[in-house]
Amino acid sequence: MSGIVVIGGSDAGITAALRAREVAPGTDVTVLVADEFPNFSICGLPFFHSGEVADWRTLAHRSLSDLQASGASFLLRHRATHIDAKRKTVSVETPDGVKSVPYGRIVIATGAAPARPSIVGLESDRVFFLHAMADAFRLQDFLTTACPKSAAIVGSGYIGVEMADALVRRGLAVTMLGRSPSVLPTVDAPLGRLVETELSRHNVRICNSCSVEEIRETHDGLAVIGASGTTATADIALIAAGVRPATDLAEAAGIAIGRHGAIVVDQAMRTNAPDVYAAGDCVETWHRLAERLEYLPLGTTAHKQGRVAGENAAGGSRVFAGSLGTQVVKVFDLAIARTGFRDHEARSAGFKPVTVETTAWDHKAYYPGASELTIRVTGDRQTRRLLGAQIVGHWQAAVAKRIDAFATALHSGMSVDDISDLDLSYTPPLGSPWDAVQLAAQSWVKTVRP
Amino acid sequence: MSGIVVIGGSDAGITAALRAREVAPGTDVTVLVADEFPNFSICGLPFFHSGEVADWRTLAHRSLSDLQASGASFLLRHRATHIDAKRKTVSVETPDGVKSVPYGRIVIATGAAPARPSIVGLESDRVFFLHAMADAFRLQDFLTTACPKSAAIVGSGYIGVEMADALVRRGLAVTMLGRSPSVLPTVDAPLGRLVETELSRHNVRICNSCSVEEIRETHDGLAVIGASGTTATADIALIAAGVRPATDLAEAAGIAIGRHGAIVVDQAMRTNAPDVYAAGDCVETWHRLAERLEYLPLGTTAHKQGRVAGENAAGGSRVFAGSLGTQVVKVFDLAIARTGFRDHEARSAGFKPVTVETTAWDHKAYYPGASELTIRVTGDRQTRRLLGAQIVGHWQAAVAKRIDAFATALHSGMSVDDISDLDLSYTPPLGSPWDAVQLAAQSWVKTVRP
Repeated sequence: MSGIVVIGGSDAGITAALRAREVAPGTDVTVLVADEFPNFSICGLPFFHSGEVADWRTLAHRSLSDLQASGASFLLRHRATHIDAKRKTVSVETPDGVKSVPYGRIVIATGAAPARPSIVGLESDRVFFLHAMADAFRLQDFLTTACPKSAAIVGSGYIGVEMADALVRRGLAVTMLGRSPSVLPTVDAPLGRLVETELSRHNVRICNSCSVEEIRETHDGLAVIGASGTTATADIALIAAGVRPATDLAEAAGIAIGRHGAIVVDQAMRTNAPDVYAAGDCVETWHRLAERLEYLPLGTTAHKQGRVAGENAAGGSRVFAGSLGTQVVKVFDLAIARTGFRDHEARSAGFKPVTVETTAWDHKAYYPGASELTIRVTGDRQTRRLLGAQIVGHWQAAVAKRIDAFATALHSGMSVDDISDLDLSYTPPLGSPWDAVQLAAQSWVKTVRP
Repeated sequence: MSGIVVIGGSDAGITAALRAREVAPGTDVTVLVADEFPNFSICGLPFFHSGEVADWRTLAHRSLSDLQASGASFLLRHRATHIDAKRKTVSVETPDGVKSVPYGRIVIATGAAPARPSIVGLESDRVFFLHAMADAFRLQDFLTTACPKSAAIVGSGYIGVEMADALVRRGLAVTMLGRSPSVLPTVDAPLGRLVETELSRHNVRICNSCSVEEIRETHDGLAVIGASGTTATADIALIAAGVRPATDLAEAAGIAIGRHGAIVVDQAMRTNAPDVYAAGDCVETWHRLAERLEYLPLGTTAHKQGRVAGENAAGGSRVFAGSLGTQVVKVFDLAIARTGFRDHEARSAGFKPVTVETTAWDHKAYYPGASELTIRVTGDRQTRRLLGAQIVGHWQAAVAKRIDAFATALHSGMSVDDISDLDLSYTPPLGSPWDAVQLAAQSWVKTVRP
């Protein structure tokens, strides 16, 4: 058979290629990379714009020569335009014209593209998106040459709040306009309000429940116009309205698309077409708790799915264990993390959730530098199974790794009561005899009597 | 029946009393506290001596009035001297003479005492131990009034390294003398050597494989004498040679003592005497992996056991889930943590362990402040079950909470391979798409082929 062809040079594609070579070193693996930037950490772009990362080249997870050392071939500026699933070939636009590349097995890792909300005026030179390296270069170029003094960020999700942080650090006056009633709608509103306080403390102006209809060029910048008139003026606008799966290639090849608009795969990361695998932001992801496909475009998930797809394309039989939607974001001095379900998500998956909020010190208050964590634990009223957790706290208070303890407990199907049985570590500068994670679980247990 | 009497005012005793009142608010609960300092954080004493904690009073986990709000009675300077398990009474020395206190059920939480190694000269006024508040006051008084310039610390375990840090911060020249070939013998020697480097960087003089035989008063201080002659001179000596369970009371009452010299309890924290429970540093602890009793005196475990003992003494049927020996210590800028088994411990429990060491960044190297973690993962060669982990890294690099992810995985009996399936959180300032925990597990998986 011919070798493995991977379409896509980001997290899922690169991981698939490396894993295929690792488990089957004799297999030919070719990666088609649409741009010149394979294996770049897209999640790092806000820190490039903030100035915390001085050189964009350091954003590469691995250099091209590191990648090539795996024995896989990386074809840069090779954009796949068509998959012929019957003849098992891919048409590819290259700098030297169109080529047809045969494959034995193929991994589609075309990722996602920024969502383009239906706002009039997005074609302005002063309107920016942020997803691929090209987007980042365009924005960075404008920031350094035109030196805008103010920015309107449309969207208050992960990228929105990270970019608010980044542009404030750069000295811009930032207005953030989001459709939801509180920022960061991926966490509960009481936690979103903590994030708003942090953003306000850094002079970010926040407009919630705001649906932007038009971005109009004015004599000296942009007017951002919502239903009730001009909501903000700014030198530039950044659209951070989430992403949509990039599935044109798969759809045209007759590959099944699911209810969230992304490619349907099984837990072996196989599509419905023979010898066609898919992974990353272009697929629907098995949710471990919901036990159904959801759309959860996350770098961590892309790596895991890529690893499974690569191993299986090389003849393996690995199963993707499912996502819990675990995520964390840093905004100024706060970290905000979640795993598993929030109340409404749990209800929609058939559970009887109760969510209890607790505050607890990150370490013993007598040791300098202690800060309070706000933790929301969601569990099932009947089975008492842990369903999810959300934490907000100081970014150096181990918020991310505390959510990981919850994520590990969730993975294993533990009850909220079981959390107190965990033998977690303790020293006064870093925790408490009952860690904050356990104190939050104990609050839930006290509130929800059996 | 009469109420519950708890002997001991530290972690296990206080937790037992509070839990008994919580689950059975109508029950009389009396706590006999030998000194005047109920519920003090003994783990915080090194930070009091270092000056990081300015006021010793803040070391109380709860104030006396907070404790009393539970409805339990706290009798200070009440030292239990005898348990009559047949007549169900405790003899108590009080400031007003000896009393006999009847009990319905009793919880023995007498804790531990500092081990007194067989060294000549320990009675010197310049020799100190550190365990109870009285020890801390005696040491602090000497430090502030006599202003010693140098200290010899006998013992290189947790208290030894914490006190080396504390006394250096206070400006003393410190020599640490330990019997083991590397410091912190609770972790593998390669990790102990990282701790030695950190101690040396702060001018701590380290004598390993050193068995101290005598501490002799000289005209201007102390001479610490080992097998090969004088090993160190210092103004004071601190003996940090671990602890031994305080079991005199239990032994005299005919309560069974185990092979480690501590009280034998079942997983309900019952001793062999009717209506007598025990918890904390005076008992042998069920090890969840070894599935046998070990001696693991840890504050976290004392809290858990106290909670179970208190609930069961109040009529409950809670089971102690077992310890994994999870622990963490901070030494200058390092945190050192472990959970589960090391190689030799796993072997002695009947496993076929393999330990693999990995270094991994705590977060993406392109984001400022990244530091390397050294992680040792132990797994069973045949079943591939995770058996333990050890981590050394910067104290702000979430070492403690990363060991908690391993501890949670261990609790659930996961394999090392399963660790890669965990949906852990990621943002570049706080982690990697595969967290360091997963990269370490993947190293093990690559090394130990099925």
